[in-house]
Amino acid sequence: MADWIAADWGTSNLRLWAMAGLEVVDMRSSDRGMGAMSGPEDFARELARMTTEWGALPVIACGMVGARQGWIEVPYRAVPCPAMPTLTPVPGNPGGRPVLIAGGVMQQTPPEVMRGEETQIAGILAAQPDFDGIICLPGTHTKWARISAAEIVNFQTVMTGEIYALLSRQSVLRFSLPDGDVDLESPAFRDALATALSQPHLAWAKLFQLRAAGLIGQPEPSLARDRLSGTLIGLDLGAARANWLGQQVLIVGAPRLATLYAAALRMQGAAPVVGDADAATRAGLWSAWQAYQKHRG
Amino acid sequence: MADWIAADWGTSNLRLWAMAGLEVVDMRSSDRGMGAMSGPEDFARELARMTTEWGALPVIACGMVGARQGWIEVPYRAVPCPAMPTLTPVPGNPGGRPVLIAGGVMQQTPPEVMRGEETQIAGILAAQPDFDGIICLPGTHTKWARISAAEIVNFQTVMTGEIYALLSRQSVLRFSLPDGDVDLESPAFRDALATALSQPHLAWAKLFQLRAAGLIGQPEPSLARDRLSGTLIGLDLGAARANWLGQQVLIVGAPRLATLYAAALRMQGAAPVVGDADAATRAGLWSAWQAYQKHRG
Repeated sequence: MADWIAADWGTSNLRLWAMAGLEVVDMRSSDRGMGAMSGPEDFARELARMTTEWGALPVIACGMVGARQGWIEVPYRAVPCPAMPTLTPVPGNPGGRPVLIAGGVMQQTPPEVMRGEETQIAGILAAQPDFDGIICLPGTHTKWARISAAEIVNFQTVMTGEIYALLSRQSVLRFSLPDGDVDLESPAFRDALATALSQPHLAWAKLFQLRAAGLIGQPEPSLARDRLSGTLIGLDLGAARANWLGQQVLIVGAPRLATLYAAALRMQGAAPVVGDADAATRAGLWSAWQAYQKHRG
Repeated sequence: MADWIAADWGTSNLRLWAMAGLEVVDMRSSDRGMGAMSGPEDFARELARMTTEWGALPVIACGMVGARQGWIEVPYRAVPCPAMPTLTPVPGNPGGRPVLIAGGVMQQTPPEVMRGEETQIAGILAAQPDFDGIICLPGTHTKWARISAAEIVNFQTVMTGEIYALLSRQSVLRFSLPDGDVDLESPAFRDALATALSQPHLAWAKLFQLRAAGLIGQPEPSLARDRLSGTLIGLDLGAARANWLGQQVLIVGAPRLATLYAAALRMQGAAPVVGDADAATRAGLWSAWQAYQKHRG
């Protein structure tokens, strides 16, 4: 029997799990992310619609649902701070049950923000309280977070996933990219990665070459996607090198993307460990919910 | 009295000048670029529609109108080659007059292509036949062409304009960029430029900071556009540094953009000269038309 609901409510998607403690009982998802909502009533209606079958269980949510354009704005905490998110209740117990939203984390210098990743980090630390190193959370906006003494010390964002999506779907490169997944074993991926890391200043000039090679009939157009991915992940790793070099690295993200980052880091001599992003989200929400009840008790 | 028509027919726009020799008599433009055409008849119809008032004068055109998806495909010449474009007639003299299209230029290693810029380069060389150095043509796809002995020796493309447009209009950064133009005198532009040149590996991580700074209420959100522009032009200059360092540099592009590139290059100790892009296009088409007639005569 489920006794609470975990919610990962981002810009583009809503994902919900009916939970019994840390056990997943059921799950649902919709494409009604924050971006599809036009006011607080929309959030309440969507949550009610998606959780009817599960009953009026408490909902613990993280992500952009707590942003200014979200359901309620939950303030950022500033680093260094414990990863464990603080929860803020949505006024009025919508749907006749508590709905609690996790706050994000910010950094003043250089300016950075996260919403959702702090919950994943808290979930990881719940299982590995002594973790000391870097947690890499690849995605639309890849985060690299320095963790020590159960705190987020500082972090850095690289817009790798968003730039990859823009270039591969909307730029002139879209005409030259084959369908399908990136092959992390391909020499094209490896070469592009190594070049972007060793000569980041030249990486920009490599992008149009993917298009030009197709236009002048050079072989291997099928490798253009591997090259684009290798270049962008190489630039990401290069931007974050001071964070991961010589550190323990844990990668937490969608399985395919986490695998690419792990392969890329291994090629650079690091020994990353890959964790389950959804499990981390649920564990972080659970920890925050436990702490909230204890504090209120 | 006009005696020929110069046409710059790119992906997004068509620009036409009624010319008397090198003198502009009249001009017209439309947004019916190659991308808006679905077949050869469309090109013929649009050209007829736009030039009715000028009569059945010969038309000399450059740009994507000669691409595979253009009116007729005009093959690329390979570098090193004279900048002067070869002209290929559209079969059947559409509209009862010759329509001639300039061919583009390609490079095998690394793979590169251009269509239209070769004509601008030819126009520049018509006025400065002994030019030896780099011609920078900033735009959607910035080209850096090495010119020596009236030939295009090699060239490099950086997708700066396209990436700027994608980031500023479609990425999450669009929420943090003020309207208005880039201020090339601002410390934000200068700092971002210098950082992108000296630490290109960190530039990727600077982009999201533009968004984060706005979210956490840091001052100077009005400078985010200057910073984005400075970062991307800095990456462009960094990618092309081996081309322009210690060379004579001529910049030929839209006035505002050419001014930004000139300021950026001056900050790096170069002494670029700025030329008029449209005048270069017309002069290049005129030279090619003269050479074609002479060859046919």
